[in-house]
Amino acid sequence: MAQPRFDVIGIGNAIVDVLAHADDAFLAANGLAKGAMTLVDAGRVETLYRVMGPAVESSGGSAANTVAGLASLGSRTAFIGKVADDAFGKVFRHDIRASGVAFDSAPAKAGAPTARCLVLVTPDAQRSMQTYLGASVELGPEDVDEKLVAAAGITYLEGYLWDPPRAKEAFRKAAACAHAAGRLVALSLSDSFCVERHREEFRDLVRHHVDILFANEAEILSLWQAPDFDQALQATRALGKTAALTRSAKGSVIIGNGEVHVADPAPAARVVDTTGAGDLYAAGFLHAQARGLGLAACGRLGGLAAAEIIGHLGARPETQLKSLIPADLR
Amino acid sequence: MAQPRFDVIGIGNAIVDVLAHADDAFLAANGLAKGAMTLVDAGRVETLYRVMGPAVESSGGSAANTVAGLASLGSRTAFIGKVADDAFGKVFRHDIRASGVAFDSAPAKAGAPTARCLVLVTPDAQRSMQTYLGASVELGPEDVDEKLVAAAGITYLEGYLWDPPRAKEAFRKAAACAHAAGRLVALSLSDSFCVERHREEFRDLVRHHVDILFANEAEILSLWQAPDFDQALQATRALGKTAALTRSAKGSVIIGNGEVHVADPAPAARVVDTTGAGDLYAAGFLHAQARGLGLAACGRLGGLAAAEIIGHLGARPETQLKSLIPADLR
Repeated sequence: MAQPRFDVIGIGNAIVDVLAHADDAFLAANGLAKGAMTLVDAGRVETLYRVMGPAVESSGGSAANTVAGLASLGSRTAFIGKVADDAFGKVFRHDIRASGVAFDSAPAKAGAPTARCLVLVTPDAQRSMQTYLGASVELGPEDVDEKLVAAAGITYLEGYLWDPPRAKEAFRKAAACAHAAGRLVALSLSDSFCVERHREEFRDLVRHHVDILFANEAEILSLWQAPDFDQALQATRALGKTAALTRSAKGSVIIGNGEVHVADPAPAARVVDTTGAGDLYAAGFLHAQARGLGLAACGRLGGLAAAEIIGHLGARPETQLKSLIPADLR
Repeated sequence: MAQPRFDVIGIGNAIVDVLAHADDAFLAANGLAKGAMTLVDAGRVETLYRVMGPAVESSGGSAANTVAGLASLGSRTAFIGKVADDAFGKVFRHDIRASGVAFDSAPAKAGAPTARCLVLVTPDAQRSMQTYLGASVELGPEDVDEKLVAAAGITYLEGYLWDPPRAKEAFRKAAACAHAAGRLVALSLSDSFCVERHREEFRDLVRHHVDILFANEAEILSLWQAPDFDQALQATRALGKTAALTRSAKGSVIIGNGEVHVADPAPAARVVDTTGAGDLYAAGFLHAQARGLGLAACGRLGGLAAAEIIGHLGARPETQLKSLIPADLR
């Protein structure tokens, strides 16, 4: 098996985040589900954008955040995702390339504009997201470059790909390519409502097509319809795969190879905005995994990367994450 | 192997608790170590008793609290421990028998009075304990009735027995009797300072003489001199024994038979006094264990019993714990 040219290739929705502060009253008045990602249409995103406060734009997308984080840690990464040939598409392309991520997906030729996600951050640092998928829905199997996938040690996929209709074909093609090349497939469950929308397919995926699973507590409870964390943990352990279950302030639980690690969270100086915490946890974890470090080290580095991202607005690192890696994990 | 006549026999220091509220300033002014158990002599206990506020007396002692909790859950239990033939000795005997625990240890003939523990409860519900061992130091192997130990499914021992000089001989005799009869031996590490005083002997005990280990986070970190919880967990897992590691508001982690359970804490209506939380967790755990329930059920019942005890002052249950057992654990 050839040495991988990339440590990780990410495939996901190419989205520009539009971040603004909001209070609970604003969420209630506009019928927004707190802490969740809700899919909205073009009309709704325009209406909400008009009534929300002053915002900042920043390239986002769950898997894209993860590969940007990986690049910041020093990993070699690539990304596949669909933007439109418009201003926000150029912003997305500029930012992800400037982060050091190889990105060559052709823009959608016609149709909808680049996907946008209105992220409303409440004073408790929770983020509530309204996503207009736009050009993301054009992503299909023809966008998956088989040689690129085969050249990456790990193919990282976001559960959100199950929302746009043809992206799941891209997902399945990528997973099959990766395994045919003897590589690993990682999946983030993305969001508990996303899991609810696609529970049976996700169960099939984690059983048969995924080697490394990332999920937060709400997502893993939803996946197994488990009444408490421990029962969700036992169901996940029964898969016999590697999995990292993140629990916000409770840290994370990492399983694999018969091991179980209960990791405390990394100390965060402040919590401003939790957008991207899960994405960056996955970045830290996979960076350590790609370097052959043990599961406890993977969890530690995941926690450190998550602690950086929640300390400021936005889901892309503001510091070179490589400088945060402790000496014993380099 | 004969059916056990008792589910659990506890062996520990027979102590009467003297509980009073105090603030941090009082602890500081009197040089008391917050959250810990400190051994004091007769003169010091008199001095402290004189300056502390109004108190209530209540039978205590770590292993004694556990067997009282087990009886309240419906287990058949016995206790071995040394009181003096004095007023507090009569109180201890009355209370433990009234709880439904068989207790026939002969009182010490002469010497020191019944052991007392001044428990100072701060507004944050933490307890700081000053123990005068008194008659407890008379406990020796001659007090361990071999037939009684052989008749109990589980022999439960408290780490505090390592403080009075001859009690460890009683401990060793009991553990040997239990194993010779094909029974199980359980140990609570009791207190992180107690672990520090006896670390090497405790390591030998948990490796070679104990089947079920109870420890809170500070105790297990101290036992292995581990820098974080996960590393202490891995060292404990390597023993290949059953263990329950309690983490206060973080719940508990239970290991055994290759299983690892991460149990959330039971919801506590209020937290008044954490005295006895570990003792009652052990009671719930062992009650489920004696009934052949799985490790997850053991942890759940431990959490429920602990939640009751921290809701009021004192380390003995105020409600019939049996009524708190959920239908699926009966």
